[in-house]
Amino acid sequence: MVKAVIIAGGRGERFWPKSRIKTPKQLSPIVSKRSMIYETVKRISPLVKPKDILVIARKGLGARIKKELPKIPLENIISEPFGRDTAAAVGLGAIFVEKREPDSVMIILPSDHVVREPEKFLETLKVAIKAAQDTDNLVTMGVKPTRPETGYGYIEIGSRFTVHGLRSVYEVKGFIEKPDRKEALRFMKSGRYLWNSGMFVWRTSIILEAMREDMPKLYEGLLEIQKALGTKRERSVIEKIYRKLDKISIDYGIMEKAKNALVVRADYLWDDVGNWQALERILPKDREGNVTRGEICSIDTKDSIILSDKGMVGTIGIKDLMVISTEDATLICPKDRAQEVKELVHRIGKNKKLKKYLE
Amino acid sequence: MVKAVIIAGGRGERFWPKSRIKTPKQLSPIVSKRSMIYETVKRISPLVKPKDILVIARKGLGARIKKELPKIPLENIISEPFGRDTAAAVGLGAIFVEKREPDSVMIILPSDHVVREPEKFLETLKVAIKAAQDTDNLVTMGVKPTRPETGYGYIEIGSRFTVHGLRSVYEVKGFIEKPDRKEALRFMKSGRYLWNSGMFVWRTSIILEAMREDMPKLYEGLLEIQKALGTKRERSVIEKIYRKLDKISIDYGIMEKAKNALVVRADYLWDDVGNWQALERILPKDREGNVTRGEICSIDTKDSIILSDKGMVGTIGIKDLMVISTEDATLICPKDRAQEVKELVHRIGKNKKLKKYLE
Repeated sequence: MVKAVIIAGGRGERFWPKSRIKTPKQLSPIVSKRSMIYETVKRISPLVKPKDILVIARKGLGARIKKELPKIPLENIISEPFGRDTAAAVGLGAIFVEKREPDSVMIILPSDHVVREPEKFLETLKVAIKAAQDTDNLVTMGVKPTRPETGYGYIEIGSRFTVHGLRSVYEVKGFIEKPDRKEALRFMKSGRYLWNSGMFVWRTSIILEAMREDMPKLYEGLLEIQKALGTKRERSVIEKIYRKLDKISIDYGIMEKAKNALVVRADYLWDDVGNWQALERILPKDREGNVTRGEICSIDTKDSIILSDKGMVGTIGIKDLMVISTEDATLICPKDRAQEVKELVHRIGKNKKLKKYLE
Repeated sequence: MVKAVIIAGGRGERFWPKSRIKTPKQLSPIVSKRSMIYETVKRISPLVKPKDILVIARKGLGARIKKELPKIPLENIISEPFGRDTAAAVGLGAIFVEKREPDSVMIILPSDHVVREPEKFLETLKVAIKAAQDTDNLVTMGVKPTRPETGYGYIEIGSRFTVHGLRSVYEVKGFIEKPDRKEALRFMKSGRYLWNSGMFVWRTSIILEAMREDMPKLYEGLLEIQKALGTKRERSVIEKIYRKLDKISIDYGIMEKAKNALVVRADYLWDDVGNWQALERILPKDREGNVTRGEICSIDTKDSIILSDKGMVGTIGIKDLMVISTEDATLICPKDRAQEVKELVHRIGKNKKLKKYLE
């Protein structure tokens, strides 16, 4: 059986003022009219039924997620008491999947990325599922770079891996953290490097075995949780274990150490939608190079991102600026400083009068 | 008797999105918590009683003005059917004043300027009233320049005019339209030039005589209106006459041609608040050079004007920018392009979907 686990723990701080604590990035209609988590579920629906989709989310978001994904059974929405990065979330997902059906194939999908060309995506996913089903490998999906992006991690591919005539499957030679521009250019040109998209496919037994070897503390915790699953102690045990866990990503905690990693080479359009600037890559631009949404009136306005949820925005003489206007808050920031929105959010959070604008 | 006529016909388009058709600049709390017309009335209240204050306003604003100035009798709020600039408004005011009490002294005050130092203002006004009462002159108030402003008109002063030992009264040598920067610098240094503040004092008989000589068409129209005052025909006659009038300012139509103009030299802080950039001169700045109001959180933000009526505004990495956020519209514009807000408003007015944001 194939199960999907959607990782929806992010806070999306870089998408303030649209992303809020109660409606983070993955639950907000940022790129299209629907939320990214909705699009994620829709994208895999030809392969995975709603009852086989689990969502790992931050505590307190269950009702909101259920509303956004009404077909997903409520018991499939699993709360993390604290954010402990993706290794813990994947581990928690694995034992829930394992309990329902031992040694399922498990697809790990971020909830807040954009994939265009859903057919290509499904084709690639099928290859990854086959590779995970028929071998004992940890299979990741690597996207062919279309630009020298310095904001992504990369996967260096090794020899072609041949099993049952599957194409596009390679051994993983290594994972590389965010490169500098020169290196990113080299990666793109060489054809031997792929973007690490954060999508994985493996059998639960294989990922749990990898955790036993490389993250023993997490693994022991997961065993404890496993014993408590379905009992009254479930929530309190998860909370007790989570409290002690370190924040480690699945890439850093498992993939970079794994000897049995494979990568499927994908060439659909993919974006991690890391901050507001990403919208320029994803959405169409007008003749002046602007990405706009909502009621806008502009004079001499170029290469800007202007979004208005409510009311209108008027601009004169701006360039390379982002203007994000929501019902109760407006952000103005140069595009190339989009990363700093996170810092602004932290500053707002420290201000007693303003912190309500994060909720 | 001293009467005051407040000219409130302006549309204040440069103050969009705060200034709207139904609540133009003079009726909006732009500089302080109260509107500028309220402050104007308050400023003269030690000298002129509410029953002696007339307001000349655009048609349709009567109720809004009455609400803002509850002490002014409703019959003192006089509607102009169309905007015909200040000469017509002053003429209309003059015949209403003349009807109530022939040959009153009449103070003309713009409704949308800022005066700090109200005591100095009243002292200067008393001098102007005395000069208007005791001589047959058109008396204007000229403000000592504090910077080489190229956006104002100037008055060149002539010989000192001595009457009853009044100080600071001069003959007017000439009116000068907006100068270039070099000329404005020379004006400021010479000490012989004053800003034309648009405030005047004269007896109704004297201004009407000046109109008879220099604006005969307006004068004849006013005589027709005068005959109709208090009759059923009053509104229709005013409308008929106004329809034919040219748009001419009192400065251009009368003052520049007058042989009997005097100027009282004033040195209170005065500003015509011509566009959003004026707020920098009027309101205090923070350490980063920003003028802010409302809930704002900023990172690396300098020399900007950031006003939020409702909700919060977050800014990162901006400089010399204006961000004006109201309940339903937000403006983003470099400070030095504040004049172009008027053009933006015209553009919004041409858009069927957006023009509601001007109302």
